[in-house]
Amino acid sequence: MAISTKPASGTRDFLPAAVLARRHVVEQIERAYAAHGFVPLETPAFERLAVLTGKYGDEGDQLMFKVLKRGEKLPALSADLDPNDLADLALRYDLTVPLARVVAAYQGRLPRFFKRYQIQPVWRADRPQKGRFREFFQCDVDFVGTRSTIAEATVIAAVTDALAALGFASFDVRLNDRRVLTGLMETARVPEDKRGAVLVAIDKLDKIGPQAVATLLRDEGVSDEGIALLTDAFGGDGAAASAETLAALFEGHSEVGLQGLATIAELQAHLAVSPLAAGRVVFDPSLARGLSYYTGPIFEIRVDGLSGSMGGGGRYDGLIGMFRGTEVPAVGFSLGLERILVVMEERGMLPDVAPKPDVMVAYLDHETVGAMLAFSARARAAGLVVEVFPDKAKLGKQFQYAEQLGIRHVVLLGTDEVEAGVVGLKDLVASTQDRLSAAEAVARLSGG
Amino acid sequence: MAISTKPASGTRDFLPAAVLARRHVVEQIERAYAAHGFVPLETPAFERLAVLTGKYGDEGDQLMFKVLKRGEKLPALSADLDPNDLADLALRYDLTVPLARVVAAYQGRLPRFFKRYQIQPVWRADRPQKGRFREFFQCDVDFVGTRSTIAEATVIAAVTDALAALGFASFDVRLNDRRVLTGLMETARVPEDKRGAVLVAIDKLDKIGPQAVATLLRDEGVSDEGIALLTDAFGGDGAAASAETLAALFEGHSEVGLQGLATIAELQAHLAVSPLAAGRVVFDPSLARGLSYYTGPIFEIRVDGLSGSMGGGGRYDGLIGMFRGTEVPAVGFSLGLERILVVMEERGMLPDVAPKPDVMVAYLDHETVGAMLAFSARARAAGLVVEVFPDKAKLGKQFQYAEQLGIRHVVLLGTDEVEAGVVGLKDLVASTQDRLSAAEAVARLSGG
Repeated sequence: MAISTKPASGTRDFLPAAVLARRHVVEQIERAYAAHGFVPLETPAFERLAVLTGKYGDEGDQLMFKVLKRGEKLPALSADLDPNDLADLALRYDLTVPLARVVAAYQGRLPRFFKRYQIQPVWRADRPQKGRFREFFQCDVDFVGTRSTIAEATVIAAVTDALAALGFASFDVRLNDRRVLTGLMETARVPEDKRGAVLVAIDKLDKIGPQAVATLLRDEGVSDEGIALLTDAFGGDGAAASAETLAALFEGHSEVGLQGLATIAELQAHLAVSPLAAGRVVFDPSLARGLSYYTGPIFEIRVDGLSGSMGGGGRYDGLIGMFRGTEVPAVGFSLGLERILVVMEERGMLPDVAPKPDVMVAYLDHETVGAMLAFSARARAAGLVVEVFPDKAKLGKQFQYAEQLGIRHVVLLGTDEVEAGVVGLKDLVASTQDRLSAAEAVARLSGG
Repeated sequence: MAISTKPASGTRDFLPAAVLARRHVVEQIERAYAAHGFVPLETPAFERLAVLTGKYGDEGDQLMFKVLKRGEKLPALSADLDPNDLADLALRYDLTVPLARVVAAYQGRLPRFFKRYQIQPVWRADRPQKGRFREFFQCDVDFVGTRSTIAEATVIAAVTDALAALGFASFDVRLNDRRVLTGLMETARVPEDKRGAVLVAIDKLDKIGPQAVATLLRDEGVSDEGIALLTDAFGGDGAAASAETLAALFEGHSEVGLQGLATIAELQAHLAVSPLAAGRVVFDPSLARGLSYYTGPIFEIRVDGLSGSMGGGGRYDGLIGMFRGTEVPAVGFSLGLERILVVMEERGMLPDVAPKPDVMVAYLDHETVGAMLAFSARARAAGLVVEVFPDKAKLGKQFQYAEQLGIRHVVLLGTDEVEAGVVGLKDLVASTQDRLSAAEAVARLSGG
């Protein structure tokens, strides 16, 4: 049986041009994160299963790639064996739980504020579909150890700087606060145990419209008054409610909601002084973000002309301390590398990063291979990227190969040239050929 | 039960200073590889199990990390279930089999000579021990598609350039050819089916001495004359045999051995013109390299003062075509990143790559956070790396934090400074403090 040579389902091979394009994007993001004082962290591809289990809900436990126990550790198979006993490790599912583990493991060795970025692959056994993969990269930036809104301002400015450096001009940062959502629930008198379901329902406003949402909300026991309030706030008839409207609503009904609005106002003031973030930050009380672990401000990047978000984040004061048993305040923002790359490619925003050697040394005679390699070493010492054609072949074929690799100049070193102490330098674009000393050829190739 | 926060057995977390040190080393290696026209390839962390099974011998099949099937794919457990049916994927075990898969999968889309480098982690469930890990990086460079010794010369020069760029001065490239070993076997009249075992035995000369090796060889049925010949050639009494000695031995007994010697001579001539490789390449007929898939020249890096090798490689014309059903000639060289890092650290060869922000903006008053962030944005726009202290704290504590992060300059922006339209700039090393305009402060921090 022939073995399939495709990469495993949902994964990709990155050929050289793709690697270089990805590297370009990652470097821009890293540089922007680093300029704000964030430092890189890398964690192993797999974690002990116990570290990851139960951290991502039932769906996460199902979509995790688990690693089979090895050798004697693998229990004897039998009908009553619990399948959970088959694995002891699982592949990294996100970059947040590893961060929480690191914060607990290196307590006392990390600075008081741990500002780390992490750009690594994660693995999820989602059904593969267009633009979604089972191996994909997250670009996370997290500010751990403070309740100050300077943390939110810093991660937002870092992410907007990164997108601007990549060439994105038209994008917004949607901003909300979990407490504003709580305020809406309190004002609409939604009981605590119904708030999750109500949030999921109201979040569908864009997709299914106010009528269908009203039905769902009524099913959850929300009053007609409550439904009207929530629908208005989420922009059922167009624009979402302003901060002023919400403040008036919350007054006397939700202290928490007012706290959320105050934090939003403070954060907007912080961001107003940042040239890139200013003007892009838009309060949007309908922003919910799926993850239930957020405790304060939440945010999301929306790029003009794209549905969905390019990344998001928020404050999650309850999560990072999970392995430490103490609360560790934290704010994070995560960009999805694959989405960025797809959009940049579609919009022609990727620079030409194809590897183009500066020169190819052609193969003319077996006797002059030494001279070929000597010239190649000399050119490399001058900082040039040099390709050496390794086999005897017709010159036309060799020139064709050079062109295929995007190489403009070919050096010819046959017995004639070696005897005359020169090199032939052919320009494949100008169709010219010169005889030069090796030093002159290197100088010309170096742009001298 | 408290969950262990250590990384999984045999794996490591890389805190920021370690990430930056590793990145420095990887970048030097990549640059050296790229200067020779090699281009980067990246493949997924896991492969279909069928792609990897049987490629690394029994040991490999045992040490592979296999991924448990998910959901409905996982068969019902029973005593007669074959454990091999539990997994469908396995983590990358080396970078050569993925290269072979890629060469088969993208046939026609890759250039005639595929010169790729690949620096990625691989995973092996070895017993963890000092300096050996279950997640470790290989730095592979391979030249695919030619039988020309220019391929060997290119990978060897690329690797020696990389080590030189990292600051290694005293190292050798040991060079041999599988055919020289075959020549020795033929001349010593070792039957073909014994050659593997004989090679393993003679390779122990350094460790167990000529007496013990002789016993092993006698057990394999090698004649006394054959034992003397092999022991002499491998340097049982000091120096290994010279090429001249071997040529005389092989003459009339082993055509293959003579071919091996001719290739070695050609390769040495190629390398003689490369300034870095010249003088470092040492013919060593006792070099065996474990892997049986080599077909021609084999080589290994030995660093002065270190036992074992820092990396190795050779020609393996039979392997890359395994998924294609045709022979694809190839030469590869692999450096072990962890070994390089350990040695560089021990020898103080790692440059100081600790992240040091250029300036920290201290936190003085809640009212001046806007001014703090505005200065921070201005300094970043000038290319500076800026840390902002996010919380109210005693100035002494803030200075201490700056020192801990290696930051020399602290900007002070309290209500006084904001009213006066200046910033305070404190130099923690010189213990001086100045009042400057923001522009002057940025200029001074930029070294202007």
